[in-house]
Amino acid sequence: MTDVTHLADLSARETARRVSAGEMTAEAVTAAFADRIAAMELEVQAFAFFDRERALAEAKAAPAGPLAGVTFGVKDVIDTADMPTGYGSAVYEGHRPLWDAPAVALTRAFGGVVMGKTVSTEFAMSSPGKTRHPVNPAHTPGGSSSGSCAAVAAGMVQIAFGTQTAGSILRPASYCGVVGYKPSFGTLNRAGIKPLSDTLDHLGLVTRDVRDAAFAVAALAERPALAQGRTGGAPLIGLFRTSRWAQAEPATRDALARTVTAIEAAGGTVRELEVPDHFERLYALFDAVMGFETPRTLAYEHRVMGARISPITRGFIETLSRATRAEYDAALAVLRQREAIVEELLGGCDGLITPAAPGEAPLGTATGDPVFNKPWTLLHVPTLSVPAGVGPLGLPVGVQVVGRIGADAETLALAAFIEDALKAGA
Amino acid sequence: MTDVTHLADLSARETARRVSAGEMTAEAVTAAFADRIAAMELEVQAFAFFDRERALAEAKAAPAGPLAGVTFGVKDVIDTADMPTGYGSAVYEGHRPLWDAPAVALTRAFGGVVMGKTVSTEFAMSSPGKTRHPVNPAHTPGGSSSGSCAAVAAGMVQIAFGTQTAGSILRPASYCGVVGYKPSFGTLNRAGIKPLSDTLDHLGLVTRDVRDAAFAVAALAERPALAQGRTGGAPLIGLFRTSRWAQAEPATRDALARTVTAIEAAGGTVRELEVPDHFERLYALFDAVMGFETPRTLAYEHRVMGARISPITRGFIETLSRATRAEYDAALAVLRQREAIVEELLGGCDGLITPAAPGEAPLGTATGDPVFNKPWTLLHVPTLSVPAGVGPLGLPVGVQVVGRIGADAETLALAAFIEDALKAGA
Repeated sequence: MTDVTHLADLSARETARRVSAGEMTAEAVTAAFADRIAAMELEVQAFAFFDRERALAEAKAAPAGPLAGVTFGVKDVIDTADMPTGYGSAVYEGHRPLWDAPAVALTRAFGGVVMGKTVSTEFAMSSPGKTRHPVNPAHTPGGSSSGSCAAVAAGMVQIAFGTQTAGSILRPASYCGVVGYKPSFGTLNRAGIKPLSDTLDHLGLVTRDVRDAAFAVAALAERPALAQGRTGGAPLIGLFRTSRWAQAEPATRDALARTVTAIEAAGGTVRELEVPDHFERLYALFDAVMGFETPRTLAYEHRVMGARISPITRGFIETLSRATRAEYDAALAVLRQREAIVEELLGGCDGLITPAAPGEAPLGTATGDPVFNKPWTLLHVPTLSVPAGVGPLGLPVGVQVVGRIGADAETLALAAFIEDALKAGA
Repeated sequence: MTDVTHLADLSARETARRVSAGEMTAEAVTAAFADRIAAMELEVQAFAFFDRERALAEAKAAPAGPLAGVTFGVKDVIDTADMPTGYGSAVYEGHRPLWDAPAVALTRAFGGVVMGKTVSTEFAMSSPGKTRHPVNPAHTPGGSSSGSCAAVAAGMVQIAFGTQTAGSILRPASYCGVVGYKPSFGTLNRAGIKPLSDTLDHLGLVTRDVRDAAFAVAALAERPALAQGRTGGAPLIGLFRTSRWAQAEPATRDALARTVTAIEAAGGTVRELEVPDHFERLYALFDAVMGFETPRTLAYEHRVMGARISPITRGFIETLSRATRAEYDAALAVLRQREAIVEELLGGCDGLITPAAPGEAPLGTATGDPVFNKPWTLLHVPTLSVPAGVGPLGLPVGVQVVGRIGADAETLALAAFIEDALKAGA
């Protein structure tokens, strides 16, 4: 019995090493996680679909590869040929795609084991699913990657795929006390995933720690350098409060303060950066882009299936629909200069720390506010939510680490430095 | 009988005007085109799916809107809920999606009538479908938008959706003697379309003339300014031979020469532009991007369904797969400066003319070489193929008009000027 517990506590990278070395089997790992799921699922409700026998059969047949034996959860907006994919909506309940999305096909080709489908809000928007916060079921786990974050937090899988259009990976990761990683735009292939916004949709990962995120993205993006770790001297990190600092609750302010202290204790330097006047404009640009694209992307669901989608989703689409084509075109023109905007915001620093969410997970089922995530999703930069302690309610709070477009290796390494610093200071 | 013929000869914009004014019904228009399809389909084989009664029922139920009564063909890589969508592959034959792609949902919402699904090569790559060249069935219609171009050329629909990752709209449009329009990247929503390359996939249109393309994109992109027509004085147009001019056959060289003469006769100015040394590099960048993205995007089809896809498709994916992640990342970094590259190539001109295809449609079924399309697809600029006469085999040849990213209104207007000039000179 101790052996089984032990297997489900291993990091993804250590699991892959041991399975590849023949020290243990993918089936044994899968069995250990299946036991965890059996023990926790009734309370957490992280899965839209889980079948123990199917998972064990997949593990038994899994090929060798860089992800050998690593257990994955797949957000239910991502297509799978052998499991239903309902996109979080009653409209598509029981839908069975004819293919695996590339993210799933590559996970399996590289030796990973898909344990099941994790709960998404409807179409990865704001109408919540059944998942509960793993620490306190009276609170939301956040969304839209609700099941992915809760499943990793509850130890049910090592890695879960999430998607983010506004703040759907970082915010629930902060709430659940796990690492949420939104890579630079386009790092992970988005095909076979229910789309909302071609300009904003990102595929990313939820993991137990930063090094597992680096390990997994290096394998999935076939880019070993992403797991290279830090090079160079002590980092210079910008503290960036954003133009919405007034929305940061004490829990988030404290988490950032703890992070600054920890970074400095670890030998890093933190410089508080001025928030330029035009930062606030990014919110209007975000609203123009998502506002124009999402109602069109969901044209069939909204116009034809409208009576069957949830009132929350319908209302959300109708609010979005106020954006005009002129606002959208103007936004796209500004965003073609993304790199220059990012460079100015970073002010010569190696990366930024900024809130990941307004505070602890709210009470109830509403999935919380992505206010601190939208600008970075819009800018296509890599961002991670790193756990930074707990707030007054005893719930986790994360801090968001932001890097340069395409500099995922450096950003992951910086986030690992910050994670180490926080653990040392805890 | 003359009435019926007349209806199927109307432009899309005139059809919408008359149907909206109550001068004729969408059903009558659809019936006229259904008659054309009945007369031509056995020879041209443009349709993957056509059902006269279904089309008439759709026309009868069509709402009012800017596309009232206009007849559309939908390339069979684009999802439709009420017609099969096989992506040109035996693997997915008879597949019935649960939704309409946004392009289809919006076409229908705006009053357009979808006549049927047009033939695509397998997954919009190079394994040809059944469609024949509408002028000479011994020749290819080109691809991958084979059925869309042939259907418009044969008068079976007024407008057809095509997709382009390399040269899949412009090249077959040139071969078939119709207008092919690839808008600026992102102008038309790509959701619900079988993807090949997130960076390169474009949705576009095949039409009878440039003004129908402007009319339809203005409606579908909800951007009336796209149909505004020309403003300002006589245009300055760059003649750009590319670094692959050696591959331009006499038919294409003659078509460009005719176009220059026609533009000058119409009061425009043509300036021959130097091809910078680094233009050739765009081909390597293209190969790196499509080479990395496409094999991953088709990971499931290639890795799991491999034995059932055509040998041509399998071989194509394997050739593509030589691209490395390092080449891909380097290409993406260069391409973040797309706008500056385009500006330099245009050299202050209002737009460029350049070959649309190497020459007339080749004999046989191989779909031809997208060599003259790849750089512009990579750069995300708007491009149109405008018919520019016939070659020595009596088959059509087009000329490609290229504009600035996001300047689709100006590029469409310039292409209309060139089309008028060519018609006046013919």
